[in-house]
Amino acid sequence: MKHEHIEGLIAAAFTPFHGDGSLNLELIPALTDKLVKDGLKGIFVCGSNGEGPNMTTEERMLVAEAFVKAARKRLLIIVHVGHSSIAESRKLAAHAASIGADAFSSVAAFYFKPTSVQVLADCMADIASAAPTLPFYYYHIPTLTGVGMDMMEFLEIAGSRIPNLAGIKYTSSTIHEYQSCFNYQNGRFDVLFGFDELLLPALAVGARGAIGSTYTFAAPLYLQTKAYFEKGDIKAAQQQHLFMVEVIRIFAKYPPIPAQKAIMKMLGWDLGPCRLPLTTFTPAQYDKLYQELEAISFFQKVQPS
Amino acid sequence: MKHEHIEGLIAAAFTPFHGDGSLNLELIPALTDKLVKDGLKGIFVCGSNGEGPNMTTEERMLVAEAFVKAARKRLLIIVHVGHSSIAESRKLAAHAASIGADAFSSVAAFYFKPTSVQVLADCMADIASAAPTLPFYYYHIPTLTGVGMDMMEFLEIAGSRIPNLAGIKYTSSTIHEYQSCFNYQNGRFDVLFGFDELLLPALAVGARGAIGSTYTFAAPLYLQTKAYFEKGDIKAAQQQHLFMVEVIRIFAKYPPIPAQKAIMKMLGWDLGPCRLPLTTFTPAQYDKLYQELEAISFFQKVQPS
Amino acid sequence: MKHEHIEGLIAAAFTPFHGDGSLNLELIPALTDKLVKDGLKGIFVCGSNGEGPNMTTEERMLVAEAFVKAARKRLLIIVHVGHSSIAESRKLAAHAASIGADAFSSVAAFYFKPTSVQVLADCMADIASAAPTLPFYYYHIPTLTGVGMDMMEFLEIAGSRIPNLAGIKYTSSTIHEYQSCFNYQNGRFDVLFGFDELLLPALAVGARGAIGSTYTFAAPLYLQTKAYFEKGDIKAAQQQHLFMVEVIRIFAKYPPIPAQKAIMKMLGWDLGPCRLPLTTFTPAQYDKLYQELEAISFFQKVQPS
Amino acid sequence: MKHEHIEGLIAAAFTPFHGDGSLNLELIPALTDKLVKDGLKGIFVCGSNGEGPNMTTEERMLVAEAFVKAARKRLLIIVHVGHSSIAESRKLAAHAASIGADAFSSVAAFYFKPTSVQVLADCMADIASAAPTLPFYYYHIPTLTGVGMDMMEFLEIAGSRIPNLAGIKYTSSTIHEYQSCFNYQNGRFDVLFGFDELLLPALAVGARGAIGSTYTFAAPLYLQTKAYFEKGDIKAAQQQHLFMVEVIRIFAKYPPIPAQKAIMKMLGWDLGPCRLPLTTFTPAQYDKLYQELEAISFFQKVQPS
Repeated sequence: MKHEHIEGLIAAAFTPFHGDGSLNLELIPALTDKLVKDGLKGIFVCGSNGEGPNMTTEERMLVAEAFVKAARKRLLIIVHVGHSSIAESRKLAAHAASIGADAFSSVAAFYFKPTSVQVLADCMADIASAAPTLPFYYYHIPTLTGVGMDMMEFLEIAGSRIPNLAGIKYTSSTIHEYQSCFNYQNGRFDVLFGFDELLLPALAVGARGAIGSTYTFAAPLYLQTKAYFEKGDIKAAQQQHLFMVEVIRIFAKYPPIPAQKAIMKMLGWDLGPCRLPLTTFTPAQYDKLYQELEAISFFQKVQPS
Repeated sequence: MKHEHIEGLIAAAFTPFHGDGSLNLELIPALTDKLVKDGLKGIFVCGSNGEGPNMTTEERMLVAEAFVKAARKRLLIIVHVGHSSIAESRKLAAHAASIGADAFSSVAAFYFKPTSVQVLADCMADIASAAPTLPFYYYHIPTLTGVGMDMMEFLEIAGSRIPNLAGIKYTSSTIHEYQSCFNYQNGRFDVLFGFDELLLPALAVGARGAIGSTYTFAAPLYLQTKAYFEKGDIKAAQQQHLFMVEVIRIFAKYPPIPAQKAIMKMLGWDLGPCRLPLTTFTPAQYDKLYQELEAISFFQKVQPS
Repeated sequence: MKHEHIEGLIAAAFTPFHGDGSLNLELIPALTDKLVKDGLKGIFVCGSNGEGPNMTTEERMLVAEAFVKAARKRLLIIVHVGHSSIAESRKLAAHAASIGADAFSSVAAFYFKPTSVQVLADCMADIASAAPTLPFYYYHIPTLTGVGMDMMEFLEIAGSRIPNLAGIKYTSSTIHEYQSCFNYQNGRFDVLFGFDELLLPALAVGARGAIGSTYTFAAPLYLQTKAYFEKGDIKAAQQQHLFMVEVIRIFAKYPPIPAQKAIMKMLGWDLGPCRLPLTTFTPAQYDKLYQELEAISFFQKVQPS
Repeated sequence: MKHEHIEGLIAAAFTPFHGDGSLNLELIPALTDKLVKDGLKGIFVCGSNGEGPNMTTEERMLVAEAFVKAARKRLLIIVHVGHSSIAESRKLAAHAASIGADAFSSVAAFYFKPTSVQVLADCMADIASAAPTLPFYYYHIPTLTGVGMDMMEFLEIAGSRIPNLAGIKYTSSTIHEYQSCFNYQNGRFDVLFGFDELLLPALAVGARGAIGSTYTFAAPLYLQTKAYFEKGDIKAAQQQHLFMVEVIRIFAKYPPIPAQKAIMKMLGWDLGPCRLPLTTFTPAQYDKLYQELEAISFFQKVQPS
């Protein structure tokens, strides 16, 4: 199977909940429209930022469906199916295929963890085969899963075992390994970069596609960085990128997913609370974060009138 | 609510699978009978050793039901409901209550992890309230979940928040903290010790109940250790305990759950393979482990003719 | 070489400093007398609690000499020589032999760390051979050094490589491995237990000697625990041991070495500040700790009038 | 104090030993000449790659002196003075000043570790004040020291406490934080990048100076990358950089410092063995590494005839 390489930004979308924690599917069409308008190439659904692992299997299916419907092929929908149980992952994968998702992705099992690249590839093969016609991306995020395998070895082993392996969602700061993966076998695999505050360094080694949570609310600023970089105006790219580094530094002092849902609310998108074990912002935290962002003119930059 | 303290050993049972990885519920009655005969006080179902997180929610329910039915109140059935999604845990908890389980238990959410004792208590309160009439045990196993909170603080906070908090399944080598928990508020909580190879040290500080995987196949040896200790024959208790330390040392060089399923097979109980991401013994591993155990007369000791 | 097994308690002594951080060697004779009077079998000098790694090589030699002189063979002096540089360790070892120390000990090198048991044994062999007539103990303390090798493998490899290997100072909560080491080759090695708040559990598996910081100020209470245990009064041993668990729990919320130097001061022994990167108690911390200890009648128990 | 920003590459030099492990000071002049010829701006002496922590204080002084003498102000000599004992670090710092070194640097104390940014700054202030006229760089290398503080907070606190703080030797893959540090207070501090295989990504965010071990043997290749990048030929820069990423990937499968000493030997520089706890290449390892590097034409590229 030959896979296209995605060029551009993919939003790791937050899942909207009502105040009581139940799904707010009604908000998904408008959120999707906004992402289309912001110039995104796709949406990564039910991932970490989408709180996939906090939801039931049924809820994850409902959310995936809502995004697929709302997208109307204007952008790609990649459904995250990672679970501690591979059997559940397979259900989610088959469902993603059945509803017309464009691709799917899975983290490593995260209660018991694969203990070798071979076992990791076995696990991913099992999941990927549940939707054999859909491109599959392994979701590498060692800080969350605790599974920090060598990704070059993974491509070597999984590349010959998983016919629908499209590539990796690569969420780690080790850009040298990312560069190697990206260039492996003449760029056979699509390696999407997943560390927003390292987008410019990743572009420097050749990144084309990237997935991240802050692209949900600040994609235009990143696209500007990318544009500067591509036309050779490195100084401008650095300045622009540094601004988002600063923004992320500010909110990352808080629990980051609740902080970003708070930012979405500041921008007019009330996506509701987070689910335990994530926490939800207190009004005091909300106000403090607002002021910190206001102090660097974040809202002006991200929503120019 | 006043909870009884469990005295004796509880088997952290392995889940039987067929060769193709599907549930082998048919084996559960005989396995349960064996555990009754071996003198166990209870069975911990769908826990780590039972590969709970490797199964679907539906499968976990089927396994729990099979054990409850097989037990016929001859021993206690404690159902593990831990999941990355608290919503799924609540389903499993309500189900455990509905089928007549004796107690339930949950690890901390393990994709996103609670970041404070308070949040951990919030999570456990949410789960425990889904089966309010059933005793609930927090399952503390930091090496697997990566959640290593202070258990005395947990008892302090959760003790006043969770009416049906019976205690903790304490799986950590920090016996001093275990001793503190055990004695907290005049022994208000039942703290079951979960580290088999530390049973004798735990008895020394006052342990009464313990949960462990090796009690599935070697309970009589541990009960002997306990009996020696209780009648003051420390030397004999040490000798007996050292034997099991040696056994565990031998199989722990292998992936421990697959190794113990292999041991069960050597003892005549074919519980099938493990599920990914756990691996299953190769014939070579099986033979090597057999010989290592044979070399210390394990089979003679554990199954005297 | 055949080594005696040390039976009893060894104080991991704090190094006395003047207010300005310089050595206060003058206090060592009185401190040593106190430890003799308290019934200790030895003093572990310049170890972790003695801030060995915070001192220069020259200072470490001076402190070791002062303790050897003060001891006058009334108790054993074990000199810790661990250093990031094995060449410096060898100097300290040769010096320890030259001044008449009774034994010496070393942690694993802790900047670069041994990456296998074999390399660890090579390192220890290099150090041990600098004082070939003196018994040598490997100091196993993985939480501080980050070197967490298998101690049974170490004994196997080092046992045939290091003629003067007397045993291990074992500072880890894995009492099952401790029990194995202790029994290895019919108790060939002297494995001194180093986790004060786990003394009773360690006694239960057969511990005879132990090294710890709190034995500097509370040895009589532990000796009482040991006596109760030995005469079979387990309940009394548990009660007594639980008290010290509680004491340690109280001060371990603070940085533990500064906290224990503060406790020494409360007991009339002004051992001065700690050296950076350790901190020194503020008056407010001092008062708070004092009150917390007073609240459980610590001073009464430890210094009965 | 106003500090110049170093532009260019600084070699983290290996320390030459004789076959018996003793210092081979005689090789230092020729090695220094080679580094001058290769276009380096400085040499970082007795750092991690120079095995500083494996040497005695006296040896470190001898090595520092030899490099200062050999340099004859043709390039900068930065002396690393990090030690578990701050008192020893101060000795090394005063010595560095006395022999005419250009700057000095220290890792965090690494047996006991600073537990807050404030304590880290206190430690570094203590060291820096021992050579107040010399620029001081904090050496941030969390994977080796285990001290992973927030470097922006460090600059904030240390900036006002340490008059001779020139900046940071920043050895971590978190390039976003590096970019923030670099830009802090209009570029007040000189933040030297220390992760060779991430040089191109670092250049993309504005890096000017870098310190690394592979600059000892491959500086011309990196300078070429830098030149391509600066003239806007990103593709060529990526290609060139990818080659060194591949080289590092090959040797990093071995213990990296011994591997690099082996590479130096392949290139005609016999710097001798490494010291324990580092290991030294076996002939078989040497041959295998040689063939792996030969297979990608490493020697041709690095030493064009």
